[in-house]
Amino acid sequence: MVIALLTDFGDYYPGVMKGVIRKITQDEVIDLTHSIHPQNVIEGAFLLHSAYGYFPAGTIFISVVDPGVGGDRAAIAIKTENYWFVCPDNGIAFPSAVEDGITEIFRIKESVSQISGALSATFHGRDIFALAGALIREGRMEHLERFNGELVSLDLFDARVEDGLIVGRVVHIDRFGNAVTNITRDLIEEHSISGFTYMGHEIPLVEKYEDVERGKPLAIIGSFNTLELSLREDNFSRHFNVGFGNIELGWR
Amino acid sequence: MVIALLTDFGDYYPGVMKGVIRKITQDEVIDLTHSIHPQNVIEGAFLLHSAYGYFPAGTIFISVVDPGVGGDRAAIAIKTENYWFVCPDNGIAFPSAVEDGITEIFRIKESVSQISGALSATFHGRDIFALAGALIREGRMEHLERFNGELVSLDLFDARVEDGLIVGRVVHIDRFGNAVTNITRDLIEEHSISGFTYMGHEIPLVEKYEDVERGKPLAIIGSFNTLELSLREDNFSRHFNVGFGNIELGWR
Amino acid sequence: MVIALLTDFGDYYPGVMKGVIRKITQDEVIDLTHSIHPQNVIEGAFLLHSAYGYFPAGTIFISVVDPGVGGDRAAIAIKTENYWFVCPDNGIAFPSAVEDGITEIFRIKESVSQISGALSATFHGRDIFALAGALIREGRMEHLERFNGELVSLDLFDARVEDGLIVGRVVHIDRFGNAVTNITRDLIEEHSISGFTYMGHEIPLVEKYEDVERGKPLAIIGSFNTLELSLREDNFSRHFNVGFGNIELGWR
Repeated sequence: MVIALLTDFGDYYPGVMKGVIRKITQDEVIDLTHSIHPQNVIEGAFLLHSAYGYFPAGTIFISVVDPGVGGDRAAIAIKTENYWFVCPDNGIAFPSAVEDGITEIFRIKESVSQISGALSATFHGRDIFALAGALIREGRMEHLERFNGELVSLDLFDARVEDGLIVGRVVHIDRFGNAVTNITRDLIEEHSISGFTYMGHEIPLVEKYEDVERGKPLAIIGSFNTLELSLREDNFSRHFNVGFGNIELGWR
Repeated sequence: MVIALLTDFGDYYPGVMKGVIRKITQDEVIDLTHSIHPQNVIEGAFLLHSAYGYFPAGTIFISVVDPGVGGDRAAIAIKTENYWFVCPDNGIAFPSAVEDGITEIFRIKESVSQISGALSATFHGRDIFALAGALIREGRMEHLERFNGELVSLDLFDARVEDGLIVGRVVHIDRFGNAVTNITRDLIEEHSISGFTYMGHEIPLVEKYEDVERGKPLAIIGSFNTLELSLREDNFSRHFNVGFGNIELGWR
Repeated sequence: MVIALLTDFGDYYPGVMKGVIRKITQDEVIDLTHSIHPQNVIEGAFLLHSAYGYFPAGTIFISVVDPGVGGDRAAIAIKTENYWFVCPDNGIAFPSAVEDGITEIFRIKESVSQISGALSATFHGRDIFALAGALIREGRMEHLERFNGELVSLDLFDARVEDGLIVGRVVHIDRFGNAVTNITRDLIEEHSISGFTYMGHEIPLVEKYEDVERGKPLAIIGSFNTLELSLREDNFSRHFNVGFGNIELGWR
């Protein structure tokens, strides 16, 4: 069985979480990612949604992008048909959990933090979520109670086609500078789109990187099954100064 | 049982260390961190001290921040009440080992490097420390000898209050740009401090991030149980151009 | 047994690969590195070549630096005397495999991608290589066929001495800013070289970092058994603006 971690913590904080987990369970811990852009819940939700199905059934995903840490947001554990999602209630696991089929929702009691000491104001990844995830693996539910509210929802795939424009969102920028959008393959195929314009540049929709020359822009349905904007063997995001958030593309 | 790695090596070098370890022992290897600021022994000591207690008893910490590699500094293995610390003798494990209670100190003989080949001048993480840690796990002590000198010491918590000023040290800057200091909760409570001034800015001491507006500075007792300076949902260290080393804060 | 990953993927993509692998095999997965400079096949080949021998016999190296993804390059699995190398056929594993002794070469059929879904155009690390490596571990060869072509070759150690110059290549820049070259110890000893000149600076060849003052440049035979250019406790690559590729050094 596997516990998978997805956070915006970078290095070190996840290492401490692994120590906390290992005190409770021998379950394997896999780092899914710790490079979510700080506090970017949407990117976290998108990357989790794109990844969870590749993990074995029974995997517990501890997903902590948590700008509200220390405040009123609930800490929750969602049981779905095949997985567990342990996270703050800010939408990060919502699209994944809904897709896989929610079966039970729990609130994690702050009392769980007493197992390893005090509750800090800033690092519930260590003091709440790692502990809760590890305990769930061991079948220990004493720090969970039924969650009776409504989950914070999050709609990842809200891109839309307007006259001459696709309005979507850049939801991930990877190490290669590819700007990954939430514009789905279905939306593109529905409108028989064959190319885009962006900032005055023609960007062809291609099947593979080699369909354009090195250094040229291209659009491709990438590994997330959504539209990505790339420069072949170069960094699209840097060259076009593209960041997270809304993006409008012309299309033909 | 666990072997935990803490280095300033970034990526790749730790991967080689894991290969070296795996040739000797099946013990699990956990990356605590490899992002210590290059050659910053104080940061390494601080992060190790804040983390080790969260790991299971018996964990062997291989801690390599080693500006003196290839020179005269000793390679040591410290046995404490609950853990092992394998490291260069430059203070990196000193605060942790003293706190946990030192029971025995060994010098690691360079002969250990013959197990995997030659001794390089630059990468004792691979040629000395990974090997020594893995062998200790297997109960093989033939490359250890009693260490009879005095350990290089390191005092992490030397912050002090002067008239109107706290003089401390930034000992860690995390991915969020939080400037983590060595100013302890005890010191702050002893002087009933309620806020700070820094570079002409008023910085309130708060209980949680949400106590200030987005983008505003705040001071908080963070997960290290010391003072951290933050910008809510933004990067304090970058905006205030704060780096490692001494810091002086006004207080009230 | 171990599966080791070497890629230029940074974070997240490797996490997904680990999920894919874990669905098929319980074999341990070790991250060798995911920080290869994007699309830099030569750096990947160099780092793999320098590391593989430190891993236990039987290790399967999944090595994916793959600028030709989605194009015509073959996906291959090379069995050598002691290891397996699973990678695109672009030379990345060539020096390692030849050195260890190739015993069999296979082409990986695209049909393997059906195990976890569709074949994306951009992420064969997930859709081909992770699956193939995990299946090989389980002894399942049904998606392999004999490779009858000639492997793409890659010559790492082609540095040469001309009159007054050594012409080599910077093949890796590490986190400390050390510029690691492909100029071998043998080449340096053969010409009894004792120092270098670069951009008007005298750079002594030393035995250890402490042989020069802090902040001063030095040349050293590093842990790759090749020449590295460093600034003591500082960043050579940044200060001298040195990147990957050819480098010419004066020598004496």
